[in-house]
Amino acid sequence: MRQRPPFSEVSRRTLLSTLAGLPALSGTLLSTSAPAQTTAPGGALPSWNDGAAKRAILDFVRVTTNRTGPNFVAPEDRIATFDQDGTLWVEHPMYTQVVYCLERVPTVVAKETKLKHIESFKTVLSGDREAMARLTMHDLEKILAATLTGMSVDDFEAEVKKWLETARHSRWNRPYTELVYQPMLEVLRHLRENGYKTYIATGGGQDFVRVYSERVYGIPPEQVVGTMGGTKFGYGKDGKPFLTKEPKLLLNDDHAGKPEGIHMMIGRRPYAAFGNSIGDQQMLEWTAAGAGARLKMLLLHDDAAREYAYGPAEGLPDSKIGTFTAALYDEAKKNDWTVISMKNDWRRIFAFE
Amino acid sequence: MRQRPPFSEVSRRTLLSTLAGLPALSGTLLSTSAPAQTTAPGGALPSWNDGAAKRAILDFVRVTTNRTGPNFVAPEDRIATFDQDGTLWVEHPMYTQVVYCLERVPTVVAKETKLKHIESFKTVLSGDREAMARLTMHDLEKILAATLTGMSVDDFEAEVKKWLETARHSRWNRPYTELVYQPMLEVLRHLRENGYKTYIATGGGQDFVRVYSERVYGIPPEQVVGTMGGTKFGYGKDGKPFLTKEPKLLLNDDHAGKPEGIHMMIGRRPYAAFGNSIGDQQMLEWTAAGAGARLKMLLLHDDAAREYAYGPAEGLPDSKIGTFTAALYDEAKKNDWTVISMKNDWRRIFAFE
Repeated sequence: MRQRPPFSEVSRRTLLSTLAGLPALSGTLLSTSAPAQTTAPGGALPSWNDGAAKRAILDFVRVTTNRTGPNFVAPEDRIATFDQDGTLWVEHPMYTQVVYCLERVPTVVAKETKLKHIESFKTVLSGDREAMARLTMHDLEKILAATLTGMSVDDFEAEVKKWLETARHSRWNRPYTELVYQPMLEVLRHLRENGYKTYIATGGGQDFVRVYSERVYGIPPEQVVGTMGGTKFGYGKDGKPFLTKEPKLLLNDDHAGKPEGIHMMIGRRPYAAFGNSIGDQQMLEWTAAGAGARLKMLLLHDDAAREYAYGPAEGLPDSKIGTFTAALYDEAKKNDWTVISMKNDWRRIFAFE
Repeated sequence: MRQRPPFSEVSRRTLLSTLAGLPALSGTLLSTSAPAQTTAPGGALPSWNDGAAKRAILDFVRVTTNRTGPNFVAPEDRIATFDQDGTLWVEHPMYTQVVYCLERVPTVVAKETKLKHIESFKTVLSGDREAMARLTMHDLEKILAATLTGMSVDDFEAEVKKWLETARHSRWNRPYTELVYQPMLEVLRHLRENGYKTYIATGGGQDFVRVYSERVYGIPPEQVVGTMGGTKFGYGKDGKPFLTKEPKLLLNDDHAGKPEGIHMMIGRRPYAAFGNSIGDQQMLEWTAAGAGARLKMLLLHDDAAREYAYGPAEGLPDSKIGTFTAALYDEAKKNDWTVISMKNDWRRIFAFE
């Protein structure tokens, strides 16, 4: 049995021991703008260097849309799934959603004053990262439950939207939604232009990612598969119905949960899947097990200068966020999955560069 | 708290007491063909008589697609949800999926021979409908679990597909998939032609309905929201991954579960919702609570001659399958939802007529 956390919308593998690496929580600065998505002047993937990875993508699209070839895929079956954290946007030093939860604590405590007497909330409020790293899983669950559940789905959406406008990544001092990988935006667009339906399959919270997925990735909410919490239908005093986010985990969309979530939300096996960590292994295996041409790609973060470098595959530093093990690397090589080297395959990483 | 059955993919409200009304289980006859979907010779809804219901649909589509009007809906927000049993196809005298489960019992018992010693399985095998009506909820759960779970998702799909080819409805002696309402197929098509994404939101099993939804309704599997059971990812002896259907209920997509399931699977509020029973009440309320023009429609089965007549609204006979209460009728009238009279609003019911 894999671990099934009792609730919440965020993947918490490894969370505790990485809190120490978290930068000071960002203040709320001003202004934001959507990342530029310039259209390809020459070819479909202008931010990609020529090489095996770029070729694999272009070849896959060509053969699966060639009506007279043996690998043609009917338009309605063209499904592509993308992990988010570390595949579509930056996940270091900490998953954006976890930063959100921690930064929400002061607001939540201000409303629910009795929380300020709870040790774990005190710890987060103190900003002492060493102490935060010592929080137990049980502590953390309380924090996630308090910040991700208990409100209406509309209120949650409004809160996340507002936070995204002002929160900044510590390294680039930019909104998190600008820290999306330009080469991957080009892949999304190229697939869609060729009739593929692009989905996110994330260990992050489905409702969290839906807030910005359309604006940032061109992926509508109904094409976001993520960790799912239950909601509860009820009526307000005015008789108006609303849905409350409940502290009840329905599906932890990570590891084996990714193919399970894909089956539940899509009901078809993907023809293409992109990931970057052991949490994506089963999604790629599930994709690979289908007949015909299937595109299986893993992004290796091997570019400390422009982004981050972590593995521990290929002798890169170990990481508890977005772990890419040597075993996963071996599986990829053995089964002809394509490993994308951020350093070598990407000419440009962010639109703002 | 509403009732949350512990597992399975079928809504079991009222099931037990209606088994007595079930006709002899159909034999496996031969041949099948998709229902004809003739295109409108004059207008979008040729199988509808002129009247308030037809007008409500046409008006709704017109105002929400009129770019210069106050009720314009952006194309990406055009979501329409449809209950299935009793709204898109016949649900009397018994939900088709329940007939499937009962008819699967001999096959399942042949494989799992120890089941034949269990009283409830013996009862189903006996064909004694009086005895079947006395089965407890616990008995029935075992039967549903045995016939809807424990196999791979691929095997389940193949089994349902095969059954649909030969199973026949007792009254019309036709495949269940021909017993879809031609007027509703026209509504689905009219909405899609105007940029709406059409979804099913059914109390039936999501995986069951997905087997035929594209062929029968033009609704792809990813647009089927239904009662959801968990799956479990694992590997076969050959190392190939597969998903097994588990006896674990994730969401009972009925009553309050409908807006909850719609939120989970779509993440947007529908602009149009169609139902026919108290199980659809909350979906219509959720739809109605959104701003702008919203289409809320309930089908009343008041045509014993051409289909069935049941309520108990409007003095029609009471029914435990697809109950349409007087209270629901009152809510509809009070809130300006449209009640479709099968007898008066539908010129034709089935494509084969």
